[in-house]
Amino acid sequence: MLNKSPLQIARQSYLPKMPVALLGHVALREGKSTESVADQAEIKRLFPNTYGMPFLSFEPAKKGDIPVHTEKPIRVGVILSGGQAPGGHNVICGLFDALKKLNPDNQLYGFLGGPSGLVDHKYKLLTDQIIDEYRNTGGFDIIGSGRTKLEQPEQFDSGIEICHELGISAIVIIGGDDSNTNACVLAEYYRQKDCGIQVIGCPKTIDGDLKNEMIETSFGFDTACKTYSELIGNIQRDANSAKKYWHFIRLMGRSASHIALECALQSQPNVCIISEEVQANNMTLNDVVSEICKVIVARAEKGLNFGTILIPEGLIEFIPAMKSLIQELNDLLANNDEFVALEGDDIKREYVKSALSDEARELYRSLPRPIAKQLTMDRDPHGNVQVSLIETEKLLIEMIRKRLAKMTAEGTYHGKFATQNHFFGYEGRCAIPSNFDADYTYSLGQTAAGLIAAGKTGYMAVVRNLTAPAAEWKAGGCPITMMMNIERRNGKAKPVIQKALVDLNGRPFTYLKQNRELWANSDTSYIYPGPIQYYGPSEVCNQPTRTLKLEHEK
Amino acid sequence: MLNKSPLQIARQSYLPKMPVALLGHVALREGKSTESVADQAEIKRLFPNTYGMPFLSFEPAKKGDIPVHTEKPIRVGVILSGGQAPGGHNVICGLFDALKKLNPDNQLYGFLGGPSGLVDHKYKLLTDQIIDEYRNTGGFDIIGSGRTKLEQPEQFDSGIEICHELGISAIVIIGGDDSNTNACVLAEYYRQKDCGIQVIGCPKTIDGDLKNEMIETSFGFDTACKTYSELIGNIQRDANSAKKYWHFIRLMGRSASHIALECALQSQPNVCIISEEVQANNMTLNDVVSEICKVIVARAEKGLNFGTILIPEGLIEFIPAMKSLIQELNDLLANNDEFVALEGDDIKREYVKSALSDEARELYRSLPRPIAKQLTMDRDPHGNVQVSLIETEKLLIEMIRKRLAKMTAEGTYHGKFATQNHFFGYEGRCAIPSNFDADYTYSLGQTAAGLIAAGKTGYMAVVRNLTAPAAEWKAGGCPITMMMNIERRNGKAKPVIQKALVDLNGRPFTYLKQNRELWANSDTSYIYPGPIQYYGPSEVCNQPTRTLKLEHEK
Repeated sequence: MLNKSPLQIARQSYLPKMPVALLGHVALREGKSTESVADQAEIKRLFPNTYGMPFLSFEPAKKGDIPVHTEKPIRVGVILSGGQAPGGHNVICGLFDALKKLNPDNQLYGFLGGPSGLVDHKYKLLTDQIIDEYRNTGGFDIIGSGRTKLEQPEQFDSGIEICHELGISAIVIIGGDDSNTNACVLAEYYRQKDCGIQVIGCPKTIDGDLKNEMIETSFGFDTACKTYSELIGNIQRDANSAKKYWHFIRLMGRSASHIALECALQSQPNVCIISEEVQANNMTLNDVVSEICKVIVARAEKGLNFGTILIPEGLIEFIPAMKSLIQELNDLLANNDEFVALEGDDIKREYVKSALSDEARELYRSLPRPIAKQLTMDRDPHGNVQVSLIETEKLLIEMIRKRLAKMTAEGTYHGKFATQNHFFGYEGRCAIPSNFDADYTYSLGQTAAGLIAAGKTGYMAVVRNLTAPAAEWKAGGCPITMMMNIERRNGKAKPVIQKALVDLNGRPFTYLKQNRELWANSDTSYIYPGPIQYYGPSEVCNQPTRTLKLEHEK
Repeated sequence: MLNKSPLQIARQSYLPKMPVALLGHVALREGKSTESVADQAEIKRLFPNTYGMPFLSFEPAKKGDIPVHTEKPIRVGVILSGGQAPGGHNVICGLFDALKKLNPDNQLYGFLGGPSGLVDHKYKLLTDQIIDEYRNTGGFDIIGSGRTKLEQPEQFDSGIEICHELGISAIVIIGGDDSNTNACVLAEYYRQKDCGIQVIGCPKTIDGDLKNEMIETSFGFDTACKTYSELIGNIQRDANSAKKYWHFIRLMGRSASHIALECALQSQPNVCIISEEVQANNMTLNDVVSEICKVIVARAEKGLNFGTILIPEGLIEFIPAMKSLIQELNDLLANNDEFVALEGDDIKREYVKSALSDEARELYRSLPRPIAKQLTMDRDPHGNVQVSLIETEKLLIEMIRKRLAKMTAEGTYHGKFATQNHFFGYEGRCAIPSNFDADYTYSLGQTAAGLIAAGKTGYMAVVRNLTAPAAEWKAGGCPITMMMNIERRNGKAKPVIQKALVDLNGRPFTYLKQNRELWANSDTSYIYPGPIQYYGPSEVCNQPTRTLKLEHEK
């Protein structure tokens, strides 16, 4: 019986590269006090105890500095929150190693199955042996993850209970924007209650939408995008060899199109839809179809009846008319027993059509039948359409097929349109972390330990200067309140970390914009990234994403 | 503008490892004369000029040997036939380098777009510069591929015309079983016509179904399986982290289940269906559903409501009842204008039901609606169901969902059944070849050149002893007639290379059989192979497939 692949075995002994500042004795430098990105007065009012704290940097301790240390042994809890991202295990390993370095008697507990582990008192003590099993591995299986939201005082109090019981004086929450928002609320609550529990966040998400002036990138984005780009590149080579298929490739990434954009920069497909641009230009679904058809027709005229099209999974939500239709359907069908009782697809369809507004009805009628049906069938427990389940790539294929058939009849298109469709998401969320993500996350864990030892709370661990070699990375802490603003969520004004969408004035998108016509029309501008390499020449195995590089270009 | 990824650039300078026998001056040793695997008399009658030739081995030339050489400069043509497989470019590079080593004035022409390039006289001269662009790359884009079958004397004669025009005295056909069958027919025809054109085959296909006593594996199988296994491993890590989805993963591979089996050996999923076993046990679709449900229910009892299930794309064809249903539908619906004229899904469905035999009707009724509809809608130009388009993974999901719902109602199942589905094929056919495939194909190309220089025709280039280090590989030639037997194809008896299905008595399948209960039921036996590595420790970057290793175990 085998237990591990050769690569799994080899990766166990990989030593993550670290910033020089974290290697020896570490001193903490305090910057100026901070303000939130917006709604300062309101955020300050909501976070009286954790607002305005200074930005923190770790530096090698000099003579006279008191290095960061723990007087007595401490116990720390760690939580993995939300969707998996490559590197989560290494945050925990970095945290563990740094705690043990500070004091071999320090202990790390993992709360099991996400934030609910804290609330429901499910945990395990992490030992050397356990940690060694998970070094440089993908997945969140070391302690599991979950999507329970920490938002209620009862949850917070239940957390105090178990922390006090176990002697835990600090919690590290590894999560995306929502989880870190919750970490901030928890930090504030615990500070206010003076219960002796610090809370530190870590920026995780493959979606890349947790980034700002302080967070250069969330971890996992690098590995996930490289894994998807490997596949896209392989498909492009296939397209360019067989010369007979248009490949429609939908990519995970929730609302934001960062993943699609990064994959496009890595692989140079013929088309890459960016939801933020669709919205900015107030495009309809028909407009998107037209844009794609333009490329297909132009290539067909050169005899190139093949290509690749990247589609961000959030697209649908960024098309104003689709958003309205979905809203109307949600209002109409939530808990609608009359609809449920109807029998037969055609009868249900007529029922829906008769109840929609004129505009929504028109759009609904224009959708391919299976998609229209999907919009009325697959609903979440609240009766809402599950947007992420909509197979946008198939929707586009069907609409494009129809359009091209019309153009063929009119004599304006003479190509062949055969398609393949793909959806990539689960293929990358638990990949073995790239060297970049393995290094970055290990440093994040070490940084979190430093912030804990320094007695901080309400901070997110940050590691910056990420396009430089790891030795030159800058580690520190950023008050989570600094990233917050007030947004309406489910009808209520709430303090939340601003979600980063693709910046249409940023360098990554600009690069796409400047090159996409060439990529669309040239015989092939495809790049074939190949699989993530962990060994070999540094330019092959130690590169950050193209997004990071472009954002850092002078 | 970027043109290439760092890995693309780095791989250009990779030097494929070669058998010692091919490095210096090479001598040819003739073995005993051969017989076809079956139907000897008939094959001999059909191939009077190429039957019974000896097996050939290349060895380092010793004192007194006349090394393999070309007296005068020669010109060779090469054809890529059928679906892409990683390493095709390296066959051409190996062939090119060996020809140039024999005589710098030797020339290599590529026929464009597959066998049709020979027939339609589409070709290009391959230069150093072109070859260097394609070293160690995936894809077939150097000259393109195609699926035209070389079967008609007019095609053969058209080939003679262009070969004589260009001065080409040998053609190398890189293809699967059918293409090599055709290569054999072509060789026989050209020998019979005494037109001075040799024909050499090379064993290509990711499907792994071109193998026999002489061919240890077809090229591309290694890279494709490793690419799919990377993804399966990543998905398994995700499944084991999120603990909420059953992932149904359909894998390319045509009829044979070699790819599914190899991926299972590499990743140890909870279930792997092997079509050949389904057929041997005369299982129905319901039996397959039952087998899978057994695993799902057993895991649910332990609280494990997640897992992975591998499904070979050919499954449907191996279920006798499904095969009959498809046959009936083909007979019923081919060129059936009456059916086409019917309007409405329900009416079409009733029409079909009324025309089927009782048994077929029963099965048709039991299928999920969208699949039943697919069986009557998506048809190839001959009116036949396109079996490869049937989304077997979704078919199984729907049937299992129904079964589990029934079991829940009966109180025999208490789990949650949420699913994700995947289909992997195009993701691996054009991957950058693994070191194994890069080495193997380069050696195959070199071997083909040797066979040409030695004046041979009707041979397939073979490289054996593949589980040993490349230096110890054995290169030679095998008469293609040796692999042939008579089979009925489209109602006619034809000489063809025997297609290799999974051997249910072979070691790879036996290993699966011995371990699958453990893989099904243990908390997790998952292996995470990770992406193909081209650099690093040899055990990480130079391993053959598990199938090859098991087949070679003493």
